[in-house]
Amino acid sequence: MKGIVVFSGSAHAAFADEICAHLGLRRSAVKISRFSNDCLQAQLLANCRQRDVYIVQPLVPPTQDHLMELLLMVDAARGASAGQITAVIPHYAYARSDKKDASRISIGGRLVADMLATAGVDRVLTMALHAPQVHGFFSVPVDHLTALGVIADHYRDRDLSNTVVVSPDLGNAKQATLLARLLNLPVAAGSKQRLADDRVVIDAIVGDVSGKRAIVLDDEIATGGSIVEIVNRLGDFGCQDVSVACTHGLFAGRAVEKLTSHERIVEVVSTNTVPAPADFPGLTTLSVAGLFADAIDRIHNGRSVSKLFNDVDPAYAPPPQPEGLF
Amino acid sequence: MKGIVVFSGSAHAAFADEICAHLGLRRSAVKISRFSNDCLQAQLLANCRQRDVYIVQPLVPPTQDHLMELLLMVDAARGASAGQITAVIPHYAYARSDKKDASRISIGGRLVADMLATAGVDRVLTMALHAPQVHGFFSVPVDHLTALGVIADHYRDRDLSNTVVVSPDLGNAKQATLLARLLNLPVAAGSKQRLADDRVVIDAIVGDVSGKRAIVLDDEIATGGSIVEIVNRLGDFGCQDVSVACTHGLFAGRAVEKLTSHERIVEVVSTNTVPAPADFPGLTTLSVAGLFADAIDRIHNGRSVSKLFNDVDPAYAPPPQPEGLF
Amino acid sequence: MKGIVVFSGSAHAAFADEICAHLGLRRSAVKISRFSNDCLQAQLLANCRQRDVYIVQPLVPPTQDHLMELLLMVDAARGASAGQITAVIPHYAYARSDKKDASRISIGGRLVADMLATAGVDRVLTMALHAPQVHGFFSVPVDHLTALGVIADHYRDRDLSNTVVVSPDLGNAKQATLLARLLNLPVAAGSKQRLADDRVVIDAIVGDVSGKRAIVLDDEIATGGSIVEIVNRLGDFGCQDVSVACTHGLFAGRAVEKLTSHERIVEVVSTNTVPAPADFPGLTTLSVAGLFADAIDRIHNGRSVSKLFNDVDPAYAPPPQPEGLF
Amino acid sequence: MKGIVVFSGSAHAAFADEICAHLGLRRSAVKISRFSNDCLQAQLLANCRQRDVYIVQPLVPPTQDHLMELLLMVDAARGASAGQITAVIPHYAYARSDKKDASRISIGGRLVADMLATAGVDRVLTMALHAPQVHGFFSVPVDHLTALGVIADHYRDRDLSNTVVVSPDLGNAKQATLLARLLNLPVAAGSKQRLADDRVVIDAIVGDVSGKRAIVLDDEIATGGSIVEIVNRLGDFGCQDVSVACTHGLFAGRAVEKLTSHERIVEVVSTNTVPAPADFPGLTTLSVAGLFADAIDRIHNGRSVSKLFNDVDPAYAPPPQPEGLF
Amino acid sequence: MKGIVVFSGSAHAAFADEICAHLGLRRSAVKISRFSNDCLQAQLLANCRQRDVYIVQPLVPPTQDHLMELLLMVDAARGASAGQITAVIPHYAYARSDKKDASRISIGGRLVADMLATAGVDRVLTMALHAPQVHGFFSVPVDHLTALGVIADHYRDRDLSNTVVVSPDLGNAKQATLLARLLNLPVAAGSKQRLADDRVVIDAIVGDVSGKRAIVLDDEIATGGSIVEIVNRLGDFGCQDVSVACTHGLFAGRAVEKLTSHERIVEVVSTNTVPAPADFPGLTTLSVAGLFADAIDRIHNGRSVSKLFNDVDPAYAPPPQPEGLF
Amino acid sequence: MKGIVVFSGSAHAAFADEICAHLGLRRSAVKISRFSNDCLQAQLLANCRQRDVYIVQPLVPPTQDHLMELLLMVDAARGASAGQITAVIPHYAYARSDKKDASRISIGGRLVADMLATAGVDRVLTMALHAPQVHGFFSVPVDHLTALGVIADHYRDRDLSNTVVVSPDLGNAKQATLLARLLNLPVAAGSKQRLADDRVVIDAIVGDVSGKRAIVLDDEIATGGSIVEIVNRLGDFGCQDVSVACTHGLFAGRAVEKLTSHERIVEVVSTNTVPAPADFPGLTTLSVAGLFADAIDRIHNGRSVSKLFNDVDPAYAPPPQPEGLF
Repeated sequence: MKGIVVFSGSAHAAFADEICAHLGLRRSAVKISRFSNDCLQAQLLANCRQRDVYIVQPLVPPTQDHLMELLLMVDAARGASAGQITAVIPHYAYARSDKKDASRISIGGRLVADMLATAGVDRVLTMALHAPQVHGFFSVPVDHLTALGVIADHYRDRDLSNTVVVSPDLGNAKQATLLARLLNLPVAAGSKQRLADDRVVIDAIVGDVSGKRAIVLDDEIATGGSIVEIVNRLGDFGCQDVSVACTHGLFAGRAVEKLTSHERIVEVVSTNTVPAPADFPGLTTLSVAGLFADAIDRIHNGRSVSKLFNDVDPAYAPPPQPEGLF
Repeated sequence: MKGIVVFSGSAHAAFADEICAHLGLRRSAVKISRFSNDCLQAQLLANCRQRDVYIVQPLVPPTQDHLMELLLMVDAARGASAGQITAVIPHYAYARSDKKDASRISIGGRLVADMLATAGVDRVLTMALHAPQVHGFFSVPVDHLTALGVIADHYRDRDLSNTVVVSPDLGNAKQATLLARLLNLPVAAGSKQRLADDRVVIDAIVGDVSGKRAIVLDDEIATGGSIVEIVNRLGDFGCQDVSVACTHGLFAGRAVEKLTSHERIVEVVSTNTVPAPADFPGLTTLSVAGLFADAIDRIHNGRSVSKLFNDVDPAYAPPPQPEGLF
Repeated sequence: MKGIVVFSGSAHAAFADEICAHLGLRRSAVKISRFSNDCLQAQLLANCRQRDVYIVQPLVPPTQDHLMELLLMVDAARGASAGQITAVIPHYAYARSDKKDASRISIGGRLVADMLATAGVDRVLTMALHAPQVHGFFSVPVDHLTALGVIADHYRDRDLSNTVVVSPDLGNAKQATLLARLLNLPVAAGSKQRLADDRVVIDAIVGDVSGKRAIVLDDEIATGGSIVEIVNRLGDFGCQDVSVACTHGLFAGRAVEKLTSHERIVEVVSTNTVPAPADFPGLTTLSVAGLFADAIDRIHNGRSVSKLFNDVDPAYAPPPQPEGLF
Repeated sequence: MKGIVVFSGSAHAAFADEICAHLGLRRSAVKISRFSNDCLQAQLLANCRQRDVYIVQPLVPPTQDHLMELLLMVDAARGASAGQITAVIPHYAYARSDKKDASRISIGGRLVADMLATAGVDRVLTMALHAPQVHGFFSVPVDHLTALGVIADHYRDRDLSNTVVVSPDLGNAKQATLLARLLNLPVAAGSKQRLADDRVVIDAIVGDVSGKRAIVLDDEIATGGSIVEIVNRLGDFGCQDVSVACTHGLFAGRAVEKLTSHERIVEVVSTNTVPAPADFPGLTTLSVAGLFADAIDRIHNGRSVSKLFNDVDPAYAPPPQPEGLF
Repeated sequence: MKGIVVFSGSAHAAFADEICAHLGLRRSAVKISRFSNDCLQAQLLANCRQRDVYIVQPLVPPTQDHLMELLLMVDAARGASAGQITAVIPHYAYARSDKKDASRISIGGRLVADMLATAGVDRVLTMALHAPQVHGFFSVPVDHLTALGVIADHYRDRDLSNTVVVSPDLGNAKQATLLARLLNLPVAAGSKQRLADDRVVIDAIVGDVSGKRAIVLDDEIATGGSIVEIVNRLGDFGCQDVSVACTHGLFAGRAVEKLTSHERIVEVVSTNTVPAPADFPGLTTLSVAGLFADAIDRIHNGRSVSKLFNDVDPAYAPPPQPEGLF
Repeated sequence: MKGIVVFSGSAHAAFADEICAHLGLRRSAVKISRFSNDCLQAQLLANCRQRDVYIVQPLVPPTQDHLMELLLMVDAARGASAGQITAVIPHYAYARSDKKDASRISIGGRLVADMLATAGVDRVLTMALHAPQVHGFFSVPVDHLTALGVIADHYRDRDLSNTVVVSPDLGNAKQATLLARLLNLPVAAGSKQRLADDRVVIDAIVGDVSGKRAIVLDDEIATGGSIVEIVNRLGDFGCQDVSVACTHGLFAGRAVEKLTSHERIVEVVSTNTVPAPADFPGLTTLSVAGLFADAIDRIHNGRSVSKLFNDVDPAYAPPPQPEGLF
């Protein structure tokens, strides 16, 4: 197979550029057109034949347009005899729709996985899926990266005495547990209850947080409702300063305002899998473009991607992992 | 198979209601949710098991959201053991993307057809595809209706003396020819040249239009650019009044203003395959909901849909059809 | 479609018989042969043509033989022109293999789902999947039952004062939470840590259990190691009597001995999705055959299966459900 | 992937040989057998393993036999572990069956595309499809060549004063328009009407042809009926000499006699995508084998095929193309 | 599903008519057209919607044309929303190509089975496949009839003393064995050796034939070469009169002359799965149309097809069958 | 594609090691785990990315466990982005289930072939399929080796005067015929009749065996029943010493005892496609690991595998082969 070609849709070209800088490549151009009837069309402006093609597009709002752009670019690459097509989806947002928790409901996470295969994707490269089972929704190979190493590095050189890692949700506390292990810290978790579709109540904190500083970790922050709730509860239980960290920082709706105005939140940290909001100057952004570039380099050269996480994320190492919480 | 269940996405519920009224049914409810990260989810609120399910959704702007709604509803119906799922797509807008007229370009019309099959569609019921070959993009059966009978009925009771049917584009003049035959009128056509992506020039009129009244027919009117151009050329060649007719009247952008303010345009006629714009009170809307209801009734009861068009549209009758223009 | 035909493999014919008794049918015979080279062959001894065929087989040890029996029966039914084939898998044991928690590891839950589709299954009817996301591994419709209503009924008529429902694992506490809600009881959970492949340590109990009686709930009990561990910890934290309940009671290895000899375990309750061990006379078995029969009856007659759980399991009702723990 | 291997069915081995000569290769042998019951069998007599295999076969009469030969050769190559299989179909005759212009009619163009994919084709290399939408019938990549450059070269060095390019059919005039543009000539077209299945009437000529010499261009000439008709009409409208050109010169039935005996036809030009009839010594044959060889070379070496047409056929260049006629 | 509709291609309409007569139906019309470029097109002239469609076409010479007709009719029926499509292929001639007995050779029997599935066939109804394993080439259900009962009935009322059933080929002697069992006769077989592609030598007869009358049974007679050879050898070994019987009597090439002029052949018997040659007045034709009609009736009404052969062909009865010869 | 990686399941690691020794490689490790509920899991412990992966596993008892191991290893390799996956199945035991010889019976040989494709196999490398048609059950390329050359070599240097090759079953005598031809010996065959499922009677011997020494050849020996039967009959007809040879020597049940205690059997010869039983010290084992290693080397390097058998097994040479017996 010939060399690497990297394309980007309109969702996050800066991220694709950063990947390309790491790889020593120039991003190839794509022309996305919109018919007068609002249908989209993609034209790849560089030769794909036998190339190892990577198409970068996180599923960020407007999500449906970005998804369709991605599918059309994949279709165009396949029609242009690409050697291999990897959809690089730093944030696979449809993973949120991963189960049938009501009757006759769609499972978007599986449907979009099937649509990508239909369009001609050979592999998916992504980060921090909402649930690890979503990996199994794909019929093509998935290389699933983690940002925990990068997030841990951010905190490692600080004074971490009297600090606890907190998961907003006991049901999804595995990532917080892994971060705590990397930083050698204790862990706690909120016991979340969703009263209605848009109202979340956290009524208890599991673990000791009194008088401590907290690092609250979530995979995705959208409107920030859950985060504010857990920070409030942490305050009720005697926690003082809170650093908020996530992989996918969408900060939709009034999230920026809610987070920046909260008295206990001293820092908000996110990676750059999605574009940072323009109006959030205080956001600490950690780049994972280097990780994606390394993964692409390893995929292209046939080296192990799991090796990339040795000593960082035990989830990728051969020995069996704990299934439980702490 | 049990009875008919009709669902509608958010694109054009009024059309689905009109179909249901013809069928003597009540439309069943769907709950379309939007996750805080902008992903969509569909839940069907009526039993689908073994039912003959029809999901009505034209692909109108915002096209990508409406397409994804449609796919998620189909996915939900399949997961709910629907007996048979028919996607009722009165306007299949992606038919506009039907060929590879530049290198490494997507063919959206085929891709979306494949995506519908992936989601679980068993049949598509649609009207007036941009090119008849798009029928062949689908791997599932397609029932392809025409609005020509309804449009002809609109004109039939008028004084049609000294009138000519005009196609804006010689390359797609078949529909105009068929309408002319139904009305027993001559036909003419513009010779269109697209200079750039958004600039269309019609530099000649084929056929005699001088001193005549014209019925200009197109399948879809979006921004109205081509229509205004042909009307201007018709004026240059001595044509006087123009009635503009189309199947899919999107009237996007400044179309309403352009058409209503034009001195030669005396009437604009469209069917209701897509919602009429709120600010176009002068629009004449012809309903094709009865045609769709009849087709659904025939599909459900196993009667021939092509029978529906006897004496109206020769395209559906058994004898071989003309391939050429006039 | 013609009437119902029910077949059973050799895994649990008694369960199929009980379903048939509820349906007022006789189970149809299957001849399972073993070639001298250990390959299996299935012959269905009743006409399947256009029939609504149900093949009952939980994936219990010897799991691979029972899985292959199931696949061969499905293959035979498809080859015999069955109208519709539903694999009734009361215990889908491969759901345990649902994620890639180490590099280059198989995801058996997805693979077996694909194999069933390859063999010709049209639908799966199952109960209590290990994780709700496993539903999304299947490309065919899945009707996913719950035993929580049956288990709740078992406890409802007792004195439940001073009782708490306990999940052995905080990471999978949703079922315990739902049971607690049905019984109007508080909930607690063990914080599990798997030290090595076969050694589980529970080092903390979340929630107040001191001086209480506990109902420990798990989806599957195999060797019983996790159960004994949580009961020991409950004792350490002051809990007294424990009733152990599960949906899938395999009781493999030395499980019967471990559970019956434990001083704090006063009762072991399981449904009959898998055959009860012959040497466990004290086991309380709750039958879910009626639920499966009702589901089959509803599937066959095109009535809603989710209706079956109204007022019992909120997971099946249309309103959105809590995602968190308690 | 290893080197190129070129096979040919029995339809047009001379064309395959010419391609091979351009590539500096020897054509590899195939043994096509016919069972005594008339079934065909193909055996490839050269190693295909990991090879880049090209199988050359235009769909010329006896079309069904040649199609089956092609499918069997593809099947044999796939079974022999070919690295990649390209069906080189210089004339894809089934493109003529591209729409449903009567009820319950087959769409052979799509069916044969699916059959090629079923047999194991990885790519199709073809020329001058009857309609550009037929490209979208294929699920595998298609490299679609044009003969217009070669045909233009044939005329370019002549005295083209007072000459017009004529399309027999307004509905398919795009190719004539493109040729006119390459030769800097005006264009005209016949307005065709098919009265019955085998009777075509051209009742009008669009554009000025009086006193001019004409180049009549069609994609395929089979029985020559349409060509004779347009030439007669051109005569009626004052046109004098006519040069007839096409890509696919089948000259079936009495075509040779009809064309050679016509007083106005001074030249008949065809490419060699199909074998020239033995009894047509006056035919001017333009070879496109070099184009196919270049395309194969570019496919094999991963270079852009669209580059091949820079400055020749605008259909392959990135800027958007006119959709209309002139 | 609605009622039965029977179509026939051009291979053997008389057989379809005979089936229809048994079913009390009228055969529905098909229009098979041939484009001027030799491509075929099929149009079904009766409503197929939700109908139980049967398309009758044996694969007889010209085999490729008849195969393509069949595929196009299936494609048209699928596109016309047929409820279920059964390809009725009384002689599946491609079963002759069932193994890879040379390197890089096609396996036409599997390829054609896959092509039928691609075109949209739901089931195949056929008779006397060349090898029983060919059944496994199909991914759709196959109802595989046998003519042995009908052939046995033909001989049963005769004087069968001193008679032996003979298979021309030891390698395919199972059918002869089954016929012998039905007639309570001994069996013998020729030991065939194919010296070159078109030269067969039978050098030995296994079993005692001296002074006996023989019934030579083969599945298909094409050129008759093998039959004449075995009859000659039977003569050498002292056999006197020979009755020749087969299921599929193609009698291609000089077969009629060879068989009718042979001094030892007293009778030639064939079923009517393929059309009888016009020039073979002495041929005894046994109709199997009743068997096909019964099978269609059973398929349509959901009754067991295997029941059809009780007491006639043990191959369809539940008890295990002999694998060997005698 | 990068280099070769060889994995082995638990069925026959020694064979994989022997292949690796020929190739100069080290076998890569696999971790096969068994969940406490008896489900299997496979983890490949070496990098597969872009590698040419070979997974060695004959289908020997416990066959279902070994089959599932194989499928899980293939699934893991596919998920790990293997370049190409070849299932090396020295004994494809499910080939025994290759036809529908009773109603509503499974065809395991086809089902398992489809399951392998579903799991992600790109090619199968196997030896001595029970029937050559089973090749056609696979949708992926199959390289089908023969052990006849190796077996012939074993006998070639002996005194073969007065020796005959004997097939136990006339219906499957092709292999014996080929061996006889390689050794320049005559051939004979038993006429087998299976009275019941487990009782085989051979009632006649075709060919002259009186006073001769016999080499009895079968493809698979499981319980040895057929072999003992044919040896007894050979004795009845005057044959003296018998050497028994097979490709797949399972020797299940009491086979070792039956064969070693038989007075006429002087030698038992098998290849090592399956593990030799521990209690059969007198068994002569011929290694075919070299053949498999050569085939892998040729597959990896794109050289013809059929070349491997020139002058050994005519079945692989291009000229057409005899179809009959002797």
